[in-house]
Amino acid sequence: MRIDALQYANWSEKIFRQMREGGVDAVHVTIAYHETFRETVLNLEAWNRRFEQYGDLIIRGRWASDIDAARNSGRTAIFFGFQNPSPIEDDIGLVEILHTLGARFMQLSYNNQSLLATGCYEPEDPGITRMGREVIAEMNRVGLVVDMSHSADRSTIEAADISTRPITITHANPHDWAPARRNKRADVIRAVTQNGGMMGFSLYPHHLRDKSACTLASFCEMVARCVETYGIGHFGIGSDLCQDQPDSVVEWMRVGRWTKRIDYGEGSADAPGFPPQPDWFRDNRDFGRIEEGLRTVGMSADEVAAIMGGNWYRFFAKNFSPEAR
Amino acid sequence: MRIDALQYANWSEKIFRQMREGGVDAVHVTIAYHETFRETVLNLEAWNRRFEQYGDLIIRGRWASDIDAARNSGRTAIFFGFQNPSPIEDDIGLVEILHTLGARFMQLSYNNQSLLATGCYEPEDPGITRMGREVIAEMNRVGLVVDMSHSADRSTIEAADISTRPITITHANPHDWAPARRNKRADVIRAVTQNGGMMGFSLYPHHLRDKSACTLASFCEMVARCVETYGIGHFGIGSDLCQDQPDSVVEWMRVGRWTKRIDYGEGSADAPGFPPQPDWFRDNRDFGRIEEGLRTVGMSADEVAAIMGGNWYRFFAKNFSPEAR
Repeated sequence: MRIDALQYANWSEKIFRQMREGGVDAVHVTIAYHETFRETVLNLEAWNRRFEQYGDLIIRGRWASDIDAARNSGRTAIFFGFQNPSPIEDDIGLVEILHTLGARFMQLSYNNQSLLATGCYEPEDPGITRMGREVIAEMNRVGLVVDMSHSADRSTIEAADISTRPITITHANPHDWAPARRNKRADVIRAVTQNGGMMGFSLYPHHLRDKSACTLASFCEMVARCVETYGIGHFGIGSDLCQDQPDSVVEWMRVGRWTKRIDYGEGSADAPGFPPQPDWFRDNRDFGRIEEGLRTVGMSADEVAAIMGGNWYRFFAKNFSPEAR
Repeated sequence: MRIDALQYANWSEKIFRQMREGGVDAVHVTIAYHETFRETVLNLEAWNRRFEQYGDLIIRGRWASDIDAARNSGRTAIFFGFQNPSPIEDDIGLVEILHTLGARFMQLSYNNQSLLATGCYEPEDPGITRMGREVIAEMNRVGLVVDMSHSADRSTIEAADISTRPITITHANPHDWAPARRNKRADVIRAVTQNGGMMGFSLYPHHLRDKSACTLASFCEMVARCVETYGIGHFGIGSDLCQDQPDSVVEWMRVGRWTKRIDYGEGSADAPGFPPQPDWFRDNRDFGRIEEGLRTVGMSADEVAAIMGGNWYRFFAKNFSPEAR
């Protein structure tokens, strides 16, 4: 089983066919960065049309059992998530509404301060806000998973402690392997994993050691070391694949409507666009190479299966349903 | 089994307890008259809070099987509907979004011309619009039932013919029994029922012969005559009970934001508010009296059961799911 816990591509039949070619059974796709509620609903409508149009390649993912249905019919289950809480605006009632519409992950902040938590680019991190505590409880109640991928350290550690259900970092790597602002320090990974949470390893070049020149062996050794340090049950893949997107989209991700200036985020003025993928992971067709790479660094067949999809499957099965009353 | 295919009350624990006392297993409740999409979502959020708060009395109704679940646990299943297409605004994609959020009935117009069809108070009825044809097809696809209770005759007859699935008049009576503008002429009832559709008998005084002074016998004789004329399978109850509402709500229903003047609709300047219910049907506790009344006018036990809920149950079971591909 192969599950990718984060992609944000310029969706097309080509990409859905590549998912099939790569044997990808489920993908968590981002449907909002800075979108309001109404704009998020427009993105949901666009996905409804894709499910109609490409029904032979993809199916709507609501529960872990939809992954089984996808596997049994040779399709890929698509699960929705937000990289920012902007879709709920200032209205806690939208948490349940959006869960009903299929949202399964929501980041509490995206680089900047939000109404709920602090982003990883802010100079100060005062932790989870008053509304943040309320929204975490509501997310726990309905089965919307907390994702802290783009949040600051204190906010992440507090979220892991406040949340009564396990939280996630769907896409990032350890900071001591590649010291990017978005990668996570040991105490953050510890806080998330020791409460039953999950982290997905990112293949976005800015999160890799040596960026686009990162080797498969280096990536797989990093995975093996995390498993050794924190336990096999807490890791999967969250590739952060942003395939076929024009540079205008990376600008929307970074800038939204919060500034009139350009902010380069993880890029820079001389390299403002998406960096090239490493040659061993170009797109969905290359998940098999990671699987081979993990075996090559000495991981057992069971461990490789857990990382490639088994762990995320178990996590989805446990955390997408409303809390038992 | 007792099903009421239309109510719009000022919802409270008192009313939910009266539903239980009256043995009402399911109610189709109106959640929008003139509301925009966002305003409708706020109404859905208010219902989410009611399901949390009164979980011992009501459950969310999505499918006919939820009525069984309600019966088995001594609760009432609440199904959502709109009396106007305002919640979809000008966006056909909102049909599926709102069905996912639980909407099961939508009127194509409410008294006035809409983007889709003509209302029963307009002087001219040009029939179903271009967008109306598209939206009916989309409603058929996802399982959102067309309701023409407040629509004009030509629009209603055209909707019955254009729709590939049966349509409804959830709350009205025959015009030849009580000549209200909202009651339906024989050719309209014929068009709806001959295509497998359903009509719910209204207990709103303006739709009754002699209004608040209508007798139970007159109402039940009218039901028996409809059954004789159009067949037993096409009728149920749609009480149009508007319990405990302040007069400001009847004003919102009639006037919305479409005029700055007061429009009295079925009322008048000297009686602008809600008329008093007939003494034999005050509220949800009185469904048993209608059942008795129907037996008294000579209907068989099977016929009475069909009218009180069996027909709506069968209709819900067939028409709320997406069309088979």
